[in-house]
Amino acid sequence: MFSTVAVDGEVRRWEDLRLHDFAQGFFFGAGFFTTFRIDSGTPLFLARHLARLRASLAAFPGAVRAPSPEHLSDEAVRATLRRCLEADAALGSSFTGVGKLSASDGHLLLTFRPAAPDAERLRREGRALDTVEPGVYRRGEVTLNHKGLSYFRQYALMERLPLLGNEAGEVCELPTANLFFHLDGALVTPPLDAPCLPGIVRAVLLEAGRLGGLPVVERPVPLTRLADVSACFFTNSAVLATGVPRLLRRELPGSLPLAEQARTLIAAVARREG
Amino acid sequence: MFSTVAVDGEVRRWEDLRLHDFAQGFFFGAGFFTTFRIDSGTPLFLARHLARLRASLAAFPGAVRAPSPEHLSDEAVRATLRRCLEADAALGSSFTGVGKLSASDGHLLLTFRPAAPDAERLRREGRALDTVEPGVYRRGEVTLNHKGLSYFRQYALMERLPLLGNEAGEVCELPTANLFFHLDGALVTPPLDAPCLPGIVRAVLLEAGRLGGLPVVERPVPLTRLADVSACFFTNSAVLATGVPRLLRRELPGSLPLAEQARTLIAAVARREG
Repeated sequence: MFSTVAVDGEVRRWEDLRLHDFAQGFFFGAGFFTTFRIDSGTPLFLARHLARLRASLAAFPGAVRAPSPEHLSDEAVRATLRRCLEADAALGSSFTGVGKLSASDGHLLLTFRPAAPDAERLRREGRALDTVEPGVYRRGEVTLNHKGLSYFRQYALMERLPLLGNEAGEVCELPTANLFFHLDGALVTPPLDAPCLPGIVRAVLLEAGRLGGLPVVERPVPLTRLADVSACFFTNSAVLATGVPRLLRRELPGSLPLAEQARTLIAAVARREG
Repeated sequence: MFSTVAVDGEVRRWEDLRLHDFAQGFFFGAGFFTTFRIDSGTPLFLARHLARLRASLAAFPGAVRAPSPEHLSDEAVRATLRRCLEADAALGSSFTGVGKLSASDGHLLLTFRPAAPDAERLRREGRALDTVEPGVYRRGEVTLNHKGLSYFRQYALMERLPLLGNEAGEVCELPTANLFFHLDGALVTPPLDAPCLPGIVRAVLLEAGRLGGLPVVERPVPLTRLADVSACFFTNSAVLATGVPRLLRRELPGSLPLAEQARTLIAAVARREG
Protein backbone atom coordinates (compact mmCIF):
# COMPACT_ATOMS: atom_id res chain seq x y z
CA MET A 1 0.00 0.00 0.00
CA PHE A 2 1.22 3.51 -0.74
CA SER A 3 1.83 6.02 2.03
CA THR A 4 -0.30 8.70 0.34
CA VAL A 5 -3.96 8.35 1.28
CA ALA A 6 -6.94 10.67 1.64
CA VAL A 7 -9.49 11.05 4.45
CA ASP A 8 -12.69 12.94 3.64
CA GLY A 9 -11.04 14.51 0.62
CA GLU A 10 -7.90 15.61 2.44
CA VAL A 11 -4.52 14.19 1.35
CA ARG A 12 -2.82 12.51 4.34
CA ARG A 13 -0.03 10.07 5.20
CA TRP A 14 -1.16 6.56 6.07
CA GLU A 15 1.26 6.55 9.01
CA ASP A 16 -0.44 9.59 10.53
CA LEU A 17 -3.99 8.22 10.71
CA ARG A 18 -5.31 7.42 14.17
CA LEU A 19 -7.13 4.22 15.11
CA HIS A 20 -9.32 6.51 17.22
CA ASP A 21 -10.94 7.94 14.07
CA PHE A 22 -11.90 4.48 12.75
CA ALA A 23 -12.84 2.79 16.02
CA GLN A 24 -16.20 1.20 15.10
CA GLY A 25 -14.69 -0.03 11.84
CA PHE A 26 -11.89 -1.70 13.79
CA PHE A 27 -13.73 -3.02 16.87
CA PHE A 28 -16.90 -4.23 15.14
CA GLY A 29 -16.16 -4.33 11.40
CA ALA A 30 -18.86 -1.67 11.14
CA GLY A 31 -18.15 -0.19 7.71
CA PHE A 32 -18.06 -0.91 3.99
CA PHE A 33 -15.43 -0.77 1.27
CA THR A 34 -14.99 -1.02 -2.45
CA THR A 35 -11.92 -1.73 -4.55
CA PHE A 36 -11.52 -0.35 -8.07
CA ARG A 37 -9.02 -0.42 -10.87
CA ILE A 38 -7.12 2.69 -11.94
CA ASP A 39 -5.75 2.70 -15.51
CA SER A 40 -3.30 5.51 -16.33
CA GLY A 41 -4.81 7.74 -13.68
CA THR A 42 -8.45 6.99 -14.60
CA PRO A 43 -10.64 5.05 -12.15
CA LEU A 44 -12.79 2.38 -13.83
CA PHE A 45 -16.54 2.29 -13.05
CA LEU A 46 -16.07 4.72 -10.16
CA ALA A 47 -19.67 5.99 -10.30
CA ARG A 48 -20.92 2.40 -9.95
CA HIS A 49 -18.58 1.69 -7.04
CA LEU A 50 -19.77 4.80 -5.22
CA ALA A 51 -23.41 3.97 -5.88
CA ARG A 52 -22.91 0.54 -4.29
CA LEU A 53 -21.05 2.02 -1.33
CA ARG A 54 -23.80 4.59 -0.75
CA ALA A 55 -26.44 1.85 -1.02
CA SER A 56 -24.67 -0.23 1.63
CA LEU A 57 -24.42 2.77 3.95
CA ALA A 58 -28.11 3.52 3.38
CA ALA A 59 -29.03 -0.10 4.18
CA PHE A 60 -27.50 0.06 7.68
CA PRO A 61 -28.00 3.67 8.83
CA GLY A 62 -28.06 2.81 12.53
CA ALA A 63 -25.00 0.57 12.53
CA VAL A 64 -22.50 2.48 10.38
CA ARG A 65 -21.95 6.23 10.57
CA ALA A 66 -21.77 7.32 6.92
CA PRO A 67 -19.28 9.90 5.65
CA SER A 68 -20.75 13.25 4.67
CA PRO A 69 -22.56 12.90 1.29
CA GLU A 70 -20.35 15.61 -0.23
CA HIS A 71 -17.38 13.23 0.04
CA LEU A 72 -19.24 10.36 -1.62
CA SER A 73 -19.93 11.96 -4.99
CA ASP A 74 -18.20 10.85 -8.18
CA GLU A 75 -16.72 14.32 -8.77
CA ALA A 76 -15.43 14.68 -5.21
CA VAL A 77 -13.69 11.29 -5.26
CA ARG A 78 -12.19 11.93 -8.72
CA ALA A 79 -10.81 15.25 -7.53
CA THR A 80 -9.39 13.69 -4.36
CA LEU A 81 -7.86 10.84 -6.35
CA ARG A 82 -6.20 13.33 -8.70
CA ARG A 83 -4.79 15.30 -5.78
CA CYS A 84 -3.36 12.12 -4.25
CA LEU A 85 -1.71 10.99 -7.49
CA GLU A 86 -0.18 14.41 -8.04
CA ALA A 87 1.03 14.68 -4.45
CA ASP A 88 3.11 11.51 -4.57
CA ALA A 89 5.87 10.90 -7.13
CA ALA A 90 5.59 7.15 -6.43
CA LEU A 91 2.00 7.32 -7.76
CA GLY A 92 1.95 10.10 -10.38
CA SER A 93 -0.95 11.31 -12.49
CA SER A 94 -0.74 8.31 -14.83
CA PHE A 95 -0.75 5.74 -12.01
CA THR A 96 -1.99 2.26 -12.86
CA GLY A 97 -3.06 0.10 -9.95
CA VAL A 98 -5.87 -0.36 -7.49
CA GLY A 99 -7.79 2.20 -5.42
CA LYS A 100 -9.82 1.36 -2.36
CA LEU A 101 -12.51 3.36 -0.57
CA SER A 102 -13.31 2.39 3.03
CA ALA A 103 -16.22 4.04 4.85
CA SER A 104 -16.64 3.85 8.63
CA ASP A 105 -17.02 6.13 11.66
CA GLY A 106 -18.24 9.00 9.47
CA HIS A 107 -15.06 8.97 7.39
CA LEU A 108 -14.14 8.03 3.83
CA LEU A 109 -10.62 6.65 3.47
CA LEU A 110 -9.00 6.39 0.02
CA THR A 111 -5.92 4.17 -0.30
CA PHE A 112 -3.82 2.89 -3.19
CA ARG A 113 -1.91 -0.27 -3.98
CA PRO A 114 0.03 -1.44 -7.02
CA ALA A 115 -1.62 -3.80 -9.50
CA ALA A 116 -1.28 -7.40 -8.26
CA PRO A 117 2.12 -8.75 -9.37
CA ASP A 118 0.41 -11.79 -10.90
CA ALA A 119 -2.27 -9.81 -12.79
CA GLU A 120 -0.57 -10.25 -16.17
CA ARG A 121 0.00 -13.97 -15.59
CA LEU A 122 -3.64 -14.40 -14.49
CA ARG A 123 -4.78 -12.71 -17.68
CA ARG A 124 -2.56 -14.95 -19.81
CA GLU A 125 -2.84 -18.28 -18.02
CA GLY A 126 -5.96 -17.91 -15.88
CA ARG A 127 -6.37 -19.59 -12.52
CA ALA A 128 -7.45 -23.17 -11.88
CA LEU A 129 -10.19 -23.68 -9.27
CA ASP A 130 -9.98 -27.11 -7.69
CA THR A 131 -11.66 -26.85 -4.29
CA VAL A 132 -15.15 -26.25 -2.97
CA GLU A 133 -16.33 -25.07 0.44
CA PRO A 134 -19.94 -26.20 0.39
CA GLY A 135 -22.39 -24.64 2.83
CA VAL A 136 -20.22 -21.68 3.82
CA TYR A 137 -23.01 -19.20 3.07
CA ARG A 138 -26.69 -19.29 3.91
CA ARG A 139 -29.13 -18.57 1.09
CA GLY A 140 -30.52 -15.03 1.35
CA GLU A 141 -27.87 -13.92 3.86
CA VAL A 142 -28.18 -10.17 3.48
CA THR A 143 -24.80 -8.97 4.77
CA LEU A 144 -23.07 -10.89 1.95
CA ASN A 145 -24.70 -8.53 -0.56
CA HIS A 146 -22.50 -5.79 0.90
CA LYS A 147 -18.72 -5.47 0.82
CA GLY A 148 -18.18 -4.96 4.52
CA LEU A 149 -15.15 -4.44 6.74
CA SER A 150 -16.39 -7.60 8.50
CA TYR A 151 -14.67 -9.48 5.71
CA PHE A 152 -13.06 -12.29 7.67
CA ARG A 153 -15.01 -15.21 6.19
CA GLN A 154 -13.77 -14.25 2.75
CA TYR A 155 -10.34 -13.06 3.88
CA ALA A 156 -9.55 -16.35 5.62
CA LEU A 157 -10.20 -18.25 2.36
CA MET A 158 -8.65 -15.77 -0.05
CA GLU A 159 -5.39 -17.59 -0.67
CA ARG A 160 -6.89 -21.02 -1.35
CA LEU A 161 -9.72 -19.54 -3.47
CA PRO A 162 -12.37 -22.26 -3.08
CA LEU A 163 -15.78 -22.04 -4.73
CA LEU A 164 -18.14 -21.06 -1.90
CA GLY A 165 -21.49 -22.81 -1.70
CA ASN A 166 -24.68 -22.44 0.32
CA GLU A 167 -26.65 -24.91 2.42
CA ALA A 168 -28.79 -25.79 -0.61
CA GLY A 169 -25.76 -27.15 -2.46
CA GLU A 170 -25.55 -24.20 -4.85
CA VAL A 171 -22.53 -22.17 -5.95
CA CYS A 172 -22.35 -18.60 -4.58
CA GLU A 173 -19.05 -16.91 -5.46
CA LEU A 174 -15.31 -16.99 -4.86
CA PRO A 175 -13.99 -15.23 -1.74
CA THR A 176 -13.17 -12.15 -3.83
CA ALA A 177 -14.89 -12.64 -7.20
CA ASN A 178 -18.14 -13.46 -8.95
CA LEU A 179 -18.39 -16.61 -11.07
CA PHE A 180 -19.65 -17.12 -14.63
CA PHE A 181 -20.26 -20.55 -16.16
CA HIS A 182 -20.94 -21.59 -19.75
CA LEU A 183 -23.77 -24.00 -19.02
CA ASP A 184 -26.84 -25.15 -20.97
CA GLY A 185 -26.21 -22.71 -23.80
CA ALA A 186 -25.98 -19.63 -21.59
CA LEU A 187 -23.44 -17.71 -19.54
CA VAL A 188 -24.81 -18.28 -16.04
CA THR A 189 -23.93 -16.44 -12.83
CA PRO A 190 -25.48 -17.18 -9.40
CA PRO A 191 -28.28 -14.84 -8.25
CA LEU A 192 -27.68 -12.26 -5.50
CA ASP A 193 -29.62 -14.29 -2.95
CA ALA A 194 -27.29 -17.30 -3.45
CA PRO A 195 -25.87 -15.07 -1.84
CA CYS A 196 -23.07 -13.26 -3.61
CA LEU A 197 -21.68 -9.76 -3.82
CA PRO A 198 -23.38 -7.52 -6.42
CA GLY A 199 -20.05 -7.16 -8.20
CA ILE A 200 -19.58 -4.18 -10.50
CA VAL A 201 -18.17 -6.25 -13.38
CA ARG A 202 -20.90 -8.84 -12.81
CA ALA A 203 -23.52 -6.10 -13.27
CA VAL A 204 -21.81 -4.83 -16.43
CA LEU A 205 -21.99 -8.29 -18.01
CA LEU A 206 -25.61 -8.85 -16.96
CA GLU A 207 -26.59 -5.46 -18.38
CA ALA A 208 -24.79 -6.27 -21.64
CA GLY A 209 -27.08 -9.30 -21.86
CA ARG A 210 -24.88 -11.27 -24.25
CA LEU A 211 -21.26 -12.35 -24.48
CA GLY A 212 -20.19 -13.81 -27.79
CA GLY A 213 -23.20 -15.86 -28.81
CA LEU A 214 -24.34 -16.52 -25.24
CA PRO A 215 -27.15 -14.88 -23.27
CA VAL A 216 -25.92 -13.76 -19.82
CA VAL A 217 -28.34 -14.81 -17.09
CA GLU A 218 -28.68 -15.08 -13.29
CA ARG A 219 -29.66 -18.57 -12.29
CA PRO A 220 -28.95 -20.90 -9.34
CA VAL A 221 -26.04 -23.25 -10.14
CA PRO A 222 -26.12 -26.53 -8.19
CA LEU A 223 -22.64 -27.80 -7.33
CA THR A 224 -23.64 -31.06 -9.01
CA ARG A 225 -24.01 -29.22 -12.36
CA LEU A 226 -20.37 -28.03 -12.41
CA ALA A 227 -19.49 -31.28 -14.19
CA ASP A 228 -21.51 -30.00 -17.19
CA VAL A 229 -19.84 -26.58 -17.39
CA SER A 230 -17.90 -26.13 -20.64
CA ALA A 231 -16.11 -22.86 -19.75
CA CYS A 232 -15.73 -20.66 -16.70
CA PHE A 233 -14.29 -17.33 -15.64
CA PHE A 234 -14.48 -15.13 -12.57
CA THR A 235 -14.78 -11.36 -12.31
CA ASN A 236 -13.67 -8.67 -9.94
CA SER A 237 -12.87 -5.00 -10.27
CA ALA A 238 -9.10 -5.37 -10.07
CA VAL A 239 -8.44 -7.99 -12.80
CA LEU A 240 -11.89 -7.68 -14.53
CA ALA A 241 -12.15 -11.28 -15.84
CA THR A 242 -9.91 -14.29 -15.19
CA GLY A 243 -10.27 -17.53 -17.11
CA VAL A 244 -10.51 -20.86 -15.28
CA PRO A 245 -8.53 -23.38 -17.38
CA ARG A 246 -9.32 -26.19 -14.93
CA LEU A 247 -12.45 -26.48 -12.81
CA LEU A 248 -12.49 -29.16 -10.09
CA ARG A 249 -9.74 -31.13 -11.88
CA ARG A 250 -11.48 -30.97 -15.29
CA GLU A 251 -9.71 -29.11 -18.14
CA LEU A 252 -11.79 -26.31 -19.71
CA PRO A 253 -9.87 -25.06 -22.76
CA GLY A 254 -12.72 -22.71 -23.69
CA SER A 255 -12.30 -20.62 -20.52
CA LEU A 256 -9.36 -18.43 -21.52
CA PRO A 257 -10.85 -17.22 -24.83
CA LEU A 258 -14.21 -16.58 -23.12
CA ALA A 259 -12.50 -14.53 -20.37
CA GLU A 260 -10.69 -12.57 -23.08
CA GLN A 261 -14.02 -11.80 -24.77
CA ALA A 262 -15.41 -10.67 -21.41
CA ARG A 263 -12.45 -8.35 -20.80
CA THR A 264 -12.91 -6.78 -24.23
CA LEU A 265 -16.60 -6.13 -23.56
CA ILE A 266 -15.93 -4.78 -20.05
CA ALA A 267 -13.18 -2.46 -21.30
CA ALA A 268 -15.51 -1.10 -23.98
CA VAL A 269 -18.21 -0.31 -21.41
CA ALA A 270 -15.62 1.29 -19.11
CA ARG A 271 -14.45 3.55 -21.94
CA ARG A 272 -18.03 4.51 -22.72
CA GLU A 273 -18.75 5.39 -19.09
CA GLY A 274 -15.54 7.40 -18.79
CA MET B 1 -14.03 4.21 26.57
CA PHE B 2 -11.15 5.44 28.73
CA SER B 3 -8.13 7.13 27.21
CA THR B 4 -5.69 4.81 28.99
CA VAL B 5 -5.09 1.62 27.00
CA ALA B 6 -2.24 -0.85 26.59
CA VAL B 7 -0.63 -2.31 23.47
CA ASP B 8 1.52 -5.42 23.93
CA GLY B 9 1.86 -4.69 27.63
CA GLU B 10 2.82 -1.05 27.23
CA VAL B 11 0.56 1.64 28.70
CA ARG B 12 -0.50 4.07 25.95
CA ARG B 13 -3.07 6.76 25.16
CA TRP B 14 -5.94 5.67 22.90
CA GLU B 15 -5.58 8.91 20.91
CA ASP B 16 -1.97 8.06 20.06
CA LEU B 17 -2.56 4.66 18.45
CA ARG B 18 -2.10 4.47 14.69
CA LEU B 19 -4.49 2.79 12.29
CA HIS B 20 -1.35 1.61 10.51
CA ASP B 21 -0.58 -0.82 13.37
CA PHE B 22 -4.03 -2.45 13.18
CA ALA B 23 -4.53 -2.43 9.41
CA GLN B 24 -5.67 -6.03 8.78
CA GLY B 25 -8.01 -5.77 11.74
CA PHE B 26 -9.56 -2.65 10.23
CA PHE B 27 -9.60 -3.50 6.51
CA PHE B 28 -10.64 -7.16 6.78
CA GLY B 29 -11.92 -7.67 10.33
CA ALA B 30 -9.00 -10.08 10.68
CA GLY B 31 -8.70 -10.39 14.44
CA PHE B 32 -10.43 -11.58 17.60
CA PHE B 33 -11.55 -9.97 20.83
CA THR B 34 -12.91 -10.78 24.24
CA THR B 35 -14.73 -8.64 26.77
CA PHE B 36 -14.50 -9.30 30.50
CA ARG B 37 -15.80 -7.85 33.72
CA ILE B 38 -13.53 -6.13 36.23
CA ASP B 39 -14.79 -5.99 39.83
CA SER B 40 -12.83 -3.71 42.17
CA GLY B 41 -9.70 -4.08 40.06
CA THR B 42 -9.98 -7.86 39.64
CA PRO B 43 -10.73 -9.31 36.19
CA LEU B 44 -13.31 -12.12 36.23
CA PHE B 45 -12.49 -15.39 34.45
CA LEU B 46 -9.47 -13.79 32.76
CA ALA B 47 -7.65 -17.12 32.28
CA ARG B 48 -10.70 -18.50 30.46
CA HIS B 49 -10.99 -15.41 28.25
CA LEU B 50 -7.34 -15.67 27.29
CA ALA B 51 -7.62 -19.39 26.59
CA ARG B 52 -10.51 -18.71 24.19
CA LEU B 53 -8.63 -15.86 22.52
CA ARG B 54 -5.53 -18.04 22.04
CA ALA B 55 -7.70 -20.85 20.67
CA SER B 56 -9.24 -18.50 18.09
CA LEU B 57 -5.81 -17.26 17.03
CA ALA B 58 -4.59 -20.86 16.76
CA ALA B 59 -7.60 -21.79 14.61
CA PHE B 60 -6.75 -19.19 11.91
CA PRO B 61 -2.94 -18.97 11.91
CA GLY B 62 -2.70 -17.91 8.27
CA ALA B 63 -5.36 -15.22 8.42
CA VAL B 64 -4.62 -13.38 11.67
CA ARG B 65 -1.13 -12.48 12.87
CA ALA B 66 -1.17 -13.40 16.58
CA PRO B 67 0.43 -11.23 19.25
CA SER B 68 3.58 -12.65 20.82
CA PRO B 69 2.64 -15.47 23.25
CA GLU B 70 4.35 -13.64 26.13
CA HIS B 71 1.64 -10.97 25.94
CA LEU B 72 -1.19 -13.52 25.99
CA SER B 73 -0.47 -15.13 29.35
CA ASP B 74 -2.75 -14.63 32.35
CA GLU B 75 0.08 -13.14 34.43
CA ALA B 76 1.17 -10.72 31.71
CA VAL B 77 -2.35 -9.40 31.13
CA ARG B 78 -3.00 -9.05 34.89
CA ALA B 79 0.21 -7.07 35.29
CA THR B 80 -0.64 -4.84 32.31
CA LEU B 81 -4.15 -4.29 33.61
CA ARG B 82 -2.78 -3.28 37.01
CA ARG B 83 -0.36 -0.82 35.40
CA CYS B 84 -3.20 0.74 33.38
CA LEU B 85 -5.48 1.14 36.42
CA GLU B 86 -2.69 2.71 38.46
CA ALA B 87 -1.64 5.03 35.63
CA ASP B 88 -5.06 6.68 35.31
CA ALA B 89 -6.85 8.39 38.20
CA ALA B 90 -10.13 8.03 36.27
CA LEU B 91 -9.67 4.24 36.51
CA GLY B 92 -7.81 3.56 39.77
CA SER B 93 -6.70 0.27 41.27
CA SER B 94 -10.23 -0.54 42.47
CA PHE B 95 -11.85 0.12 39.07
CA THR B 96 -15.14 -1.64 38.37
CA GLY B 97 -16.17 -1.88 34.75
CA VAL B 98 -15.39 -3.77 31.57
CA GLY B 99 -12.06 -4.68 29.98
CA LYS B 100 -11.59 -5.68 26.37
CA LEU B 101 -8.71 -7.45 24.66
CA SER B 102 -8.47 -7.13 20.87
CA ALA B 103 -5.87 -9.14 18.94
CA SER B 104 -4.90 -8.32 15.37
CA ASP B 105 -1.83 -7.50 13.26
CA GLY B 106 0.47 -9.10 15.82
CA HIS B 107 -0.72 -6.78 18.59
CA LEU B 108 -2.78 -7.16 21.75
CA LEU B 109 -4.83 -4.07 22.61
CA LEU B 110 -6.34 -3.70 26.10
CA THR B 111 -9.09 -1.10 26.53
CA PHE B 112 -11.51 -0.17 29.32
CA ARG B 113 -15.05 1.10 29.56
CA PRO B 114 -17.36 1.85 32.47
CA ALA B 115 -19.97 -0.74 33.45
CA ALA B 116 -23.08 -0.33 31.29
CA PRO B 117 -25.30 2.40 32.81
CA ASP B 118 -28.28 0.03 32.71
CA ALA B 119 -26.45 -2.94 34.32
CA GLU B 120 -28.13 -2.49 37.71
CA ARG B 121 -31.57 -2.09 36.15
CA LEU B 122 -31.00 -5.20 33.98
CA ARG B 123 -30.09 -7.17 37.07
CA ARG B 124 -33.21 -5.97 38.93
CA GLU B 125 -35.79 -5.93 36.13
CA GLY B 126 -34.26 -8.15 33.45
CA ARG B 127 -34.82 -7.58 29.75
CA ALA B 128 -37.84 -8.71 27.71
CA LEU B 129 -37.07 -10.49 24.40
CA ASP B 130 -39.89 -10.08 21.93
CA THR B 131 -38.39 -10.53 18.47
CA VAL B 132 -36.80 -13.34 16.47
CA GLU B 133 -34.51 -13.23 13.45
CA PRO B 134 -34.92 -16.75 12.13
CA GLY B 135 -32.33 -18.12 9.72
CA VAL B 136 -29.65 -15.50 10.41
CA TYR B 137 -27.02 -18.15 11.11
CA ARG B 138 -26.18 -21.36 9.29
CA ARG B 139 -25.85 -24.50 11.38
CA GLY B 140 -22.19 -25.40 11.92
CA GLU B 141 -20.92 -22.00 10.75
CA VAL B 142 -17.42 -22.08 12.22
CA THR B 143 -16.56 -18.38 12.39
CA LEU B 144 -19.49 -17.84 14.80
CA ASN B 145 -17.67 -19.98 17.37
CA HIS B 146 -15.08 -17.18 17.56
CA LYS B 147 -15.49 -13.63 18.81
CA GLY B 148 -14.09 -11.86 15.78
CA LEU B 149 -13.51 -8.26 14.78
CA SER B 150 -15.77 -9.13 11.81
CA TYR B 151 -18.65 -8.57 14.22
CA PHE B 152 -21.04 -6.67 11.98
CA ARG B 153 -23.85 -9.22 11.83
CA GLN B 154 -24.14 -9.11 15.61
CA TYR B 155 -23.34 -5.40 15.93
CA ALA B 156 -26.08 -4.38 13.50
CA LEU B 157 -28.68 -6.23 15.65
CA MET B 158 -27.31 -5.33 19.08
CA GLU B 159 -29.80 -2.63 19.97
CA ARG B 160 -32.94 -4.56 19.06
CA LEU B 161 -31.61 -7.79 20.64
CA PRO B 162 -33.58 -10.40 18.66
CA LEU B 163 -33.20 -14.13 19.26
CA LEU B 164 -31.04 -15.34 16.37
CA GLY B 165 -32.03 -18.59 14.67
CA ASN B 166 -30.53 -20.91 12.07
CA GLU B 167 -31.90 -22.30 8.81
CA ALA B 168 -33.18 -25.38 10.65
CA GLY B 169 -35.54 -23.23 12.75
CA GLU B 170 -33.47 -23.56 15.92
CA VAL B 171 -32.42 -20.89 18.42
CA CYS B 172 -28.71 -19.96 18.41
CA GLU B 173 -27.99 -17.00 20.68
CA LEU B 174 -28.57 -13.27 21.16
CA PRO B 175 -26.29 -10.87 19.27
CA THR B 176 -24.12 -10.49 22.41
CA ALA B 177 -25.20 -13.25 24.78
CA ASN B 178 -25.89 -16.97 25.18
CA LEU B 179 -29.38 -18.17 26.02
CA PHE B 180 -30.63 -20.56 28.71
CA PHE B 181 -34.18 -21.93 28.81
CA HIS B 182 -36.03 -23.83 31.54
CA LEU B 183 -37.59 -26.47 29.28
CA ASP B 184 -38.65 -30.11 29.82
CA GLY B 185 -37.27 -30.22 33.35
CA ALA B 186 -33.79 -29.00 32.40
CA LEU B 187 -31.86 -25.78 31.90
CA VAL B 188 -31.17 -25.98 28.16
CA THR B 189 -28.69 -23.94 26.11
CA PRO B 190 -28.14 -24.35 22.34
CA PRO B 191 -25.10 -26.42 21.27
CA LEU B 192 -22.01 -24.73 19.79
CA ASP B 193 -22.85 -25.92 16.28
CA ALA B 194 -26.25 -24.12 16.39
CA PRO B 195 -23.95 -22.08 16.08
CA CYS B 196 -23.27 -19.85 19.04
CA LEU B 197 -20.29 -18.31 20.78
CA PRO B 198 -18.61 -20.56 23.36
CA GLY B 199 -19.36 -17.95 26.02
CA ILE B 200 -17.29 -18.01 29.20
CA VAL B 201 -20.32 -17.80 31.52
CA ARG B 202 -22.09 -20.41 29.40
CA ALA B 203 -19.16 -22.79 29.97
CA VAL B 204 -19.16 -22.09 33.72
CA LEU B 205 -22.84 -23.08 33.97
CA LEU B 206 -22.39 -26.19 31.83
CA GLU B 207 -19.42 -27.28 33.93
CA ALA B 208 -21.43 -26.72 37.12
CA GLY B 209 -23.91 -29.21 35.69
CA ARG B 210 -26.87 -28.09 37.84
CA LEU B 211 -28.59 -24.84 38.70
CA GLY B 212 -31.10 -25.06 41.56
CA GLY B 213 -32.77 -28.39 40.95
CA LEU B 214 -32.18 -28.37 37.18
CA PRO B 215 -29.56 -30.23 35.14
CA VAL B 216 -27.77 -27.85 32.73
CA VAL B 217 -27.55 -29.34 29.23
CA GLU B 218 -26.67 -28.44 25.65
CA ARG B 219 -29.50 -29.37 23.31
CA PRO B 220 -31.00 -27.93 20.09
CA VAL B 221 -33.97 -25.66 20.88
CA PRO B 222 -36.49 -25.39 18.02
CA LEU B 223 -38.10 -21.94 17.82
CA THR B 224 -41.46 -23.73 18.00
CA ARG B 225 -40.59 -25.00 21.52
CA LEU B 226 -40.16 -21.49 22.96
CA ALA B 227 -43.89 -21.52 23.78
CA ASP B 228 -43.14 -24.28 26.32
CA VAL B 229 -40.28 -22.47 28.08
CA SER B 230 -41.13 -21.67 31.70
CA ALA B 231 -38.14 -19.40 32.48
CA CYS B 232 -35.26 -17.85 30.53
CA PHE B 233 -32.09 -15.86 31.07
CA PHE B 234 -29.13 -14.84 28.97
CA THR B 235 -25.46 -14.72 29.86
CA ASN B 236 -22.46 -12.64 28.92
CA SER B 237 -19.23 -11.68 30.60
CA ALA B 238 -20.24 -8.09 31.36
CA VAL B 239 -23.59 -8.60 33.18
CA LEU B 240 -23.14 -12.38 33.87
CA ALA B 241 -26.85 -13.37 33.81
CA THR B 242 -29.93 -11.33 32.88
CA GLY B 243 -33.45 -12.59 33.46
CA VAL B 244 -36.04 -12.49 30.66
CA PRO B 245 -39.34 -11.54 32.31
CA ARG B 246 -41.17 -11.72 28.96
CA LEU B 247 -40.28 -14.02 26.07
CA LEU B 248 -42.02 -13.41 22.73
CA ARG B 249 -44.90 -11.57 24.47
CA ARG B 250 -45.37 -14.28 27.12
CA GLU B 251 -44.76 -13.40 30.80
CA LEU B 252 -42.16 -15.61 32.52
CA PRO B 253 -42.21 -14.70 36.23
CA GLY B 254 -39.71 -17.46 37.03
CA SER B 255 -36.95 -15.86 34.96
CA LEU B 256 -35.71 -13.22 37.40
CA PRO B 257 -35.22 -15.59 40.37
CA LEU B 258 -33.51 -18.15 38.07
CA ALA B 259 -31.12 -15.47 36.74
CA GLU B 260 -30.39 -14.46 40.34
CA GLN B 261 -29.50 -18.08 41.17
CA ALA B 262 -27.24 -18.20 38.11
CA ARG B 263 -25.44 -15.01 39.14
CA THR B 264 -24.83 -16.41 42.63
CA LEU B 265 -23.34 -19.61 41.19
CA ILE B 266 -21.21 -17.71 38.65
CA ALA B 267 -19.89 -15.32 41.30
CA ALA B 268 -18.93 -18.27 43.52
CA VAL B 269 -16.97 -19.91 40.67
CA ALA B 270 -15.31 -16.59 39.84
CA ARG B 271 -14.17 -16.20 43.47
CA ARG B 272 -12.83 -19.77 43.49
CA GLU B 273 -10.86 -19.17 40.28
CA GLY B 274 -9.51 -15.85 41.56
